[in-house]
Parts: sequence; C-alpha cells; structure tokens
Amino acid sequence: MAEQRFTTVSGQEIKPVYAPADVAGKMYEKDLGDPGRYPYTRGIYESMYRGRLWTMRQFAGFGTPEDTNARYHYLLGHGQTGLSVAFDLPTLMGYDCDDPLAEGEVGICGVSVSSLADMEVLFRGITLKDISTSMTINAPAAMALALYVVVAEQQGARPAELRGTIQADILKEYIAQKEWIYPPRPSMRIVTDMIEYCTQEMPLWHPVSVSGYHIREAGSTALQELAFTLADGFAYVEACLERGLDIDAFAPRLSFFFNSHLDFFEEIAKFRAARRIYAKRMKERYGAKDARSMTLRFHTQTAGCTLTAQQPENNIVRTAFQALAGVLGGTQSLHTNSMDETLALPGEKAVKIALRTQQIIAHETGVVNAADPLGGSYFVESLTDTLEAGAEDYFRRIDALGGVIPAIEQGFFQREIADAAYRYQRALDEGEKTVVGVNRFTEADEEVGIPILTISPEVEASQRRRIATVRASRDEGAVASALASLRAAAAGDANVMPPLIACARAYATLGEMCRTLSEVFGVYEEHAAF
Amino acid sequence: MAEQRFTTVSGQEIKPVYAPADVAGKMYEKDLGDPGRYPYTRGIYESMYRGRLWTMRQFAGFGTPEDTNARYHYLLGHGQTGLSVAFDLPTLMGYDCDDPLAEGEVGICGVSVSSLADMEVLFRGITLKDISTSMTINAPAAMALALYVVVAEQQGARPAELRGTIQADILKEYIAQKEWIYPPRPSMRIVTDMIEYCTQEMPLWHPVSVSGYHIREAGSTALQELAFTLADGFAYVEACLERGLDIDAFAPRLSFFFNSHLDFFEEIAKFRAARRIYAKRMKERYGAKDARSMTLRFHTQTAGCTLTAQQPENNIVRTAFQALAGVLGGTQSLHTNSMDETLALPGEKAVKIALRTQQIIAHETGVVNAADPLGGSYFVESLTDTLEAGAEDYFRRIDALGGVIPAIEQGFFQREIADAAYRYQRALDEGEKTVVGVNRFTEADEEVGIPILTISPEVEASQRRRIATVRASRDEGAVASALASLRAAAAGDANVMPPLIACARAYATLGEMCRTLSEVFGVYEEHAAF
Repeated sequence: MAEQRFTTVSGQEIKPVYAPADVAGKMYEKDLGDPGRYPYTRGIYESMYRGRLWTMRQFAGFGTPEDTNARYHYLLGHGQTGLSVAFDLPTLMGYDCDDPLAEGEVGICGVSVSSLADMEVLFRGITLKDISTSMTINAPAAMALALYVVVAEQQGARPAELRGTIQADILKEYIAQKEWIYPPRPSMRIVTDMIEYCTQEMPLWHPVSVSGYHIREAGSTALQELAFTLADGFAYVEACLERGLDIDAFAPRLSFFFNSHLDFFEEIAKFRAARRIYAKRMKERYGAKDARSMTLRFHTQTAGCTLTAQQPENNIVRTAFQALAGVLGGTQSLHTNSMDETLALPGEKAVKIALRTQQIIAHETGVVNAADPLGGSYFVESLTDTLEAGAEDYFRRIDALGGVIPAIEQGFFQREIADAAYRYQRALDEGEKTVVGVNRFTEADEEVGIPILTISPEVEASQRRRIATVRASRDEGAVASALASLRAAAAGDANVMPPLIACARAYATLGEMCRTLSEVFGVYEEHAAF
Repeated sequence: MAEQRFTTVSGQEIKPVYAPADVAGKMYEKDLGDPGRYPYTRGIYESMYRGRLWTMRQFAGFGTPEDTNARYHYLLGHGQTGLSVAFDLPTLMGYDCDDPLAEGEVGICGVSVSSLADMEVLFRGITLKDISTSMTINAPAAMALALYVVVAEQQGARPAELRGTIQADILKEYIAQKEWIYPPRPSMRIVTDMIEYCTQEMPLWHPVSVSGYHIREAGSTALQELAFTLADGFAYVEACLERGLDIDAFAPRLSFFFNSHLDFFEEIAKFRAARRIYAKRMKERYGAKDARSMTLRFHTQTAGCTLTAQQPENNIVRTAFQALAGVLGGTQSLHTNSMDETLALPGEKAVKIALRTQQIIAHETGVVNAADPLGGSYFVESLTDTLEAGAEDYFRRIDALGGVIPAIEQGFFQREIADAAYRYQRALDEGEKTVVGVNRFTEADEEVGIPILTISPEVEASQRRRIATVRASRDEGAVASALASLRAAAAGDANVMPPLIACARAYATLGEMCRTLSEVFGVYEEHAAF
C-alpha cells in the first residue's frame, strides 16, 4: 500500500479532500443554475423526479418474438414503465434469419426480427400508442423504425402518436462496437433522413440516441465516453444543419444514452458535465433558442462490463450503486443489468430483482425528493469542472483532425479507447485496482447457484419457418416495386424513410431492405492501419 | 398523487431544490472544518478512508459457542476485519442456559454464553490481542467483559492489549429495547465503573457504545435517534465527571452506534450532525482539550427493520444503499445485514453477500478516495443544519424534564418513539409511503428461494451439559468467595470490575454474577403510566 494511488476507475487522480477553494470562482447562475434553468447542470426539469420519475426500461429480447413478447408482458406486469428491444446479431447486422451468415446466432443475444411478421408478434397485446418503446439497432435502424411504424398503423395509431427512441447512432459503431454495414458518410445520410422524417412526422419520437454506452463498454474512460459521445451528437447536429433543418425543429428530439459505471462520483459528475457542455454548445455555437434544444435528455444503463461471472449476487450490489449514480445524475430513463448477464441471457428472477432495484431507489430511498441533491458539493462540482475541461480539450483535438468522421477514418477514437483499456487491464493485473471476487476475495470451487436461461435450437427453426411463410404468401410484385422505390430514393437525395415504410408494409424482409441500400451505398471495411 | 408530500422516511419535509441561499451564512471553518478538524462535521480523520478503511464487522452469533466460532473463522477467512458477538436472549437477560426461564431460547437469536467455559470455545483459534471484538450486551455487559478479559489472560494477553467495544449502553434499554435487569441509577453506576476500569486498565477498549440503533429500530425518526443517543452519551459523560474522572482521560474511548436507515441523504446528514453536535458540546460544555475527546467515533449497522420477508433479494439492494450512506457519513465500522434476517438467522451465503457489499464499496466504487464527498452540497448541508437544530431542541426538552433518567422515568422517550412509529405505520397503511414488495409491487404465491438456517434443539441440550460440567468441576469455595467480594463491592462504592473478573476466573456463571448484583441493586419494573 506504500505507493497506493487514489484514482477513479478511469484513472483520474482524486485529492484527499475538496473544500471551498476548489469551487472558488464558480458563479451559481452562470455555471450551475437551478434545475430546469440554463446551463442545466443541475437537471433539465425544475421539479425533476417529483414531477415524473425516470422511465424504468429494461432492455430485453431473446429467442423468438413470442418469447420476447412474453417477457415484455412479464415486465409490464411487475411495474416496468417502458419497453426496450434487444435484437439478435443477425438482425443488427442486417441479415435475415434464413441467411447462411445468420446460422447459429438466431435469437441468441436478442430477439430475431426479419420482417413485419416478426414485429407483429413481438408487440402482440401491447398498445403502441400507450407505451414508449426503445429499440437498440443501428445500421438497420431505419428499417426497424419502418417496421414499428407499420405495426402501429395496423393498430390504428399514426406515427405522430408514437413515443420512443431508436438508437440509430452509427458513429459509435465505427468508434467502438463495429456493427456497421455502410461507410460513415452514407450512414450519416440515413441518420439525417431519419431525423428529418421524425421531425416532420413523429414529433414524440427520438430519432437518434447518441450512445456513449458502447464506447464505455469497449474500455474507454468516463471522460472519453463523455467527450466522444457529445462529439458524435454535435456531428449529427451539424449534418442536420447542413441539410437545412432548423435547429429548434429537430434538436428537441435528440437524445443520449450513457453508461453508469462503478466510480460513483465520477459518473454523477459526468452526467452533470454532459448537460452543461451540451447546453452551452447548442445555445452558443448552434444558436438554439428553444430550451428543449439545449437540454440533454439521456437514458442510462448500468455497466455490463463491471459484472462478474464469479459470485453473481455481487452484481446486484454493483448494479444498485450504478443505478443510484444514474438517478443522482438526473437520468430520464434507466436499465439496470441483471446479475446473471455475464453467464447467460437474463433470467426472469434476475430481471425482476434488477427492476426492483429501481423501484427501491424511486420509492424507498428518498433520493427523488430534491433535484440534483449533490449540487454544491465541493468534490462533485470540482469533478464536474474537470470533466468539462477534459471534454473541451478532446473536442479541440477532434476538430484538429477535421471532425468526427475524419477522426474515425484515422483511427483516433479507436486508439484512445484501446490505450485506456490497456491501462485499466494493467492496473487490474498489478492489483492496483480491485474487482471483488476476481482479483481479491476470490473463492475456490465456486458453484453458480442461480438459474440460467438457455436458447433452444428450435428458435432458429421456428424463425426460418415463419420467414418461409412470409416469402411464400406475400405479393412479390409489390415487394419488388417497393424495393425499387427505395433504391431510387437512396441513389438520389429523397428521404429513405417513406420508401422503407412502404417496403415494410409489403413484407419485404429486413435483409432485402439492407441489401438494396448496400448496393447503392457500398459496404464499409475498417482500415488495418490502426 | 394530487397531494403527494415529499418527506423523508422520518417525515421531514424536503424542498424541491436546495441552492446557495439554503447555506447562506455558513462559515466553512467554524461550521464544517476540513476532515480531522473541529467541529469534525466532515469526519474525524484528516485522510479518512485513505488512511484506513472502516472495520468490516458482521454481527454474528447463534447456537453453541462451537457453531459461532466456526462462523467467525468463516468470516475472517472471507476478509472480515473485526468480530462482533451476538448473544442469545437468556445471556442478554442474565440467565444461565440451565435456568428455567431460558428454556426454548438457548442459542436461538445469538450464541449462548453462561460461563468462561463457553467464552473459551467461542474464541478458540482466534488470537484476541490481534483482533478487535465488539460485544453487544447491556445489562450483563460488565460480566461479559470480565469473561473476555479472562479468556485473553489465558492466551497471555493483558487487558491493556485488547481492542474492541462492549455495547453496555443501558440507557437505551429503558428508552427502546427493554432488556434491563437493574433500575436506571445502579445501572449507570455499573457503566461508570466499566468506563473507569477501562480508562485505567484497557486503554484500547471502548467501554460503552452509545447506541441509537435500537432506538431507531423501535420506530423513532432519524432526528430522535440522533438526539436521544447523544443525550444518553452526554448522560454517561456527566456521570463520569461526577465520579471525578477527567474528561480527557475517559472521553477518547467513548464510542457510538447508529442505524443506517433507508433515507439516503437524511442518514448522511445525521452522521455529520452527530459529529458536529458532539464536538461542540464536549469542548464548550465539558471543557475537553484533547481532540480525541471531541471526535465522535461510531459503528453503523444497516436497518434491520427495513428488510422484508417478501422478495428477500430486495434486501441486498436496501442494505447496499444503507451501507453506502454509512460510509459517506464517515462511519468507523460497519455491519451490513443479510438478506435473510427477517426469515431466520443469517445463512453463510447471505452473510457473505453482505460482507461483499462492503468490499465493493471499499474497493470498487471509488467513494473512499475523497473525505466527506458530499461536503458543500446545498441539500446535505441544509439537512445537517436542520437535524442539528432539531436535536438541540430535544436536548432543551430533556433538560426541562430534569435530564435523561427523569425523562425515562416519565416515559418521555418512549412516548415520542411510539408516536413516530404510529405516524410511519399510518403513512404505510395509507400508501403515502411505499415498501417495495409489501404495499406495492407485491407478488402472489411467492416462494422463498433462499436457504434458511435453523437451530437444532440439540444446542440447548449441549449447552446444559457444558454448564453441568462446569458446576461439577469448579472449586465451589472459590466461587462463593468471589461472589461475596462482588457483593461487597456493589454494596459499597468499590469498582465492580475487578471482583467480576475474579468471578469469571473462578467459573462463576453469568447468572450467578447477575443475581448477586440484583440482590444488592434490585430489579427494574417499568411504570405502567405511559
């Protein structure tokens, strides 16, 4: 312990004590502001959780649409207040379930959705205009949104009545998660089309959820998550401004998605810094006038990468602290991970404990009574300032490389994250950082004492049967015509959303829609140089 | 929700937001001070947990001394850093295990200890001079301490080498827990004897742990817990001053024991207010000069009364938040409850998860990096002030009744607590307060899915065999002579500790020692008037 360093999980040095000198020079009105007031450091709503609790939204999907639909009914029956769809890998990559590349992956890490027929089953018995739904999908995001719009239409709901979020943040795929189809520039065009379409037709929908979650899970620091996510968000804003959209027309529906990791105060400070940086930039650089254009709304998920296969009940504890940090940081919605997620897909009981964790925070701990309860803390305010300054420094470095897409093309983000991940791993290996049950307080001969959910091979067979029925019974002429319209829109500069919706309605498959666009846009291959 | 009130779990009104105006007029040096500096609001040590983590001390005891000894070895093997003995009800009431009044209760709620023979087994294989031990026992506290001193003596350790705490706070028994033997005034004399003895012979031992825990568990508010506990503490101080002890000779070894309940920020503020009130009173009223006389050291236990039999895994979450509040409040040692405590005695796995909760806070969350991380928070500072002012108000009311013992005799504390418990129960019944799984988010047909520890009837039989052996093999003349010396000391004004140690050494039983004193001091009966 002689040379023990006191740093956050991100490696940020922390002083032994923070006192008034650490916040000297801060001006309350200018730097913090009351909750609901610019620069929104203390929260985007005046009464915060008194007015409305965050949405309790557990990310869920596995097996067939029938399996996942049953889980949604289970969660709603236990008090969950929003839906969040996890798709399987083939769906996320734009392959139908009967594509040879999908083999062995159908329904494994999420629900398999290849066409409208699957989406209809997924939401059976759920009135879409009465619930908010989040969908985590990126390269095929526009296709998934089109399918959702058509299912709602079958229920008699107009797009304008639908509430929810689609992730659609393709930039972080190049930076961290690597689930892309098209190259960055046409991908940006699709996202811009989605934002434009939603601005006009779906005023209650968030057309993009700019996501730091995966950047963090890839091993970044809290600062990198903050800076890279906001940089991506600003890149979408700039693309929309270039398209000629008015900032106050589209910005009120942008949303963000952050990780809530282990370092309790660093995370809270990160959320507070994010709001302040965003508000200042939206107002000062982009000229936003509408308060809703300046307020950063975000979903939070607790950090999957911090969970351990060893002693899985310890994950209940980790998740609880991470969830509390999200709430103290002012999140608008929250997913709490299940203790079994490193071992398998979340089982029912584990999911329920994770949901109960949120309910205990909301209803028992009293932390919802006052907005931004940590506001004024010498430590938290100082950490908020440090993170803001660090992010501004990253923005300057990204600008110097020519912006986000050139920085991606030069491997800048990828290298920064890889370096951070390496430093953390070394700190673990050298015992400078502790993970309970992994490099300290370990147990020999540990037996897993919790139930494990497994996916049957029948899932893939069943999904293949449904897509075969779809292909056999649809009007092939209508499909071909819809796909031709899509191709024409993509090749020109018409918005791709209306033709995608027409394709969905005709039961064109997700794979067919994706392939049609890749024939126009090409496919991306990462440079090997970094 | 129309008329929803936003109050703490104690019923304290909370405003929607706290801002600089709420702490206007506070002077940092005077009201807070850096950690380790008067008035110690921010903590009693300059570097707090950087210098040394809190002691992780799980309260444990059940069955025979053999059973509990095995649990201690289990906990120490998993990284626990101190011991904490839970005695069974007969031991706590001063009955030997073969007393007819003990029948059916031996080893049920704690470990059964009737004589030195049991104490020897309880600590077998544990080197007492190398560990700190806490013992929760009150009316027979002096007898238990005597037994401990003799077991250590057998290991070759002098009393001066022993580190630990004995609860010995009899005042809160009259106020809340009702486990008394003698009337209040002779009970105060025994505590004063213990403090005097330890001041002279056991400089590393805490001779009393002034306990709010049971006051809170009886249904008090956070404010009542704070005020009544400190009032009790000041009563012991005044008794020692009347005995003629020098404040700086005994006060450095006084310690406290608080509950960490559900309302996260109210609890943190309570701990901070306790330190400030104590420091001011010890310095200003009692003239303490030594900084160690002004610093309130405390053990914390998470709130057993908040745990639910329903959905016991939710208790892992509740306990985690309560433990975090204790750490953010600057506790010196911590017991985290096990999830199964409302159903049974804690099982091994449940105890381990509770211990892991502390290790995750210490080693993963980063909250130990900076002392008093919430210092400066408008909300927390304001709540700290409110609790301090409320406690001072209670002190004035207690003084007006003539002090703590007259207030006990008039039923003041008991009525205040009963009223608070009634108000809380009504808030629950009316749904104004929520307990997850109990009055909301309930489940039909719930099955308990966790293992349950049960105590075999063989425990009582085995304990009776051991005490029979003790009685058959000891030197009865030596026992009689030791008890006679004890009686003489009690009847006069000699300190009872040396004769109690002589009794323990002679294998006089706990029951014999207690009865000898009750023959001199009488037994207490509560007035029925309140």
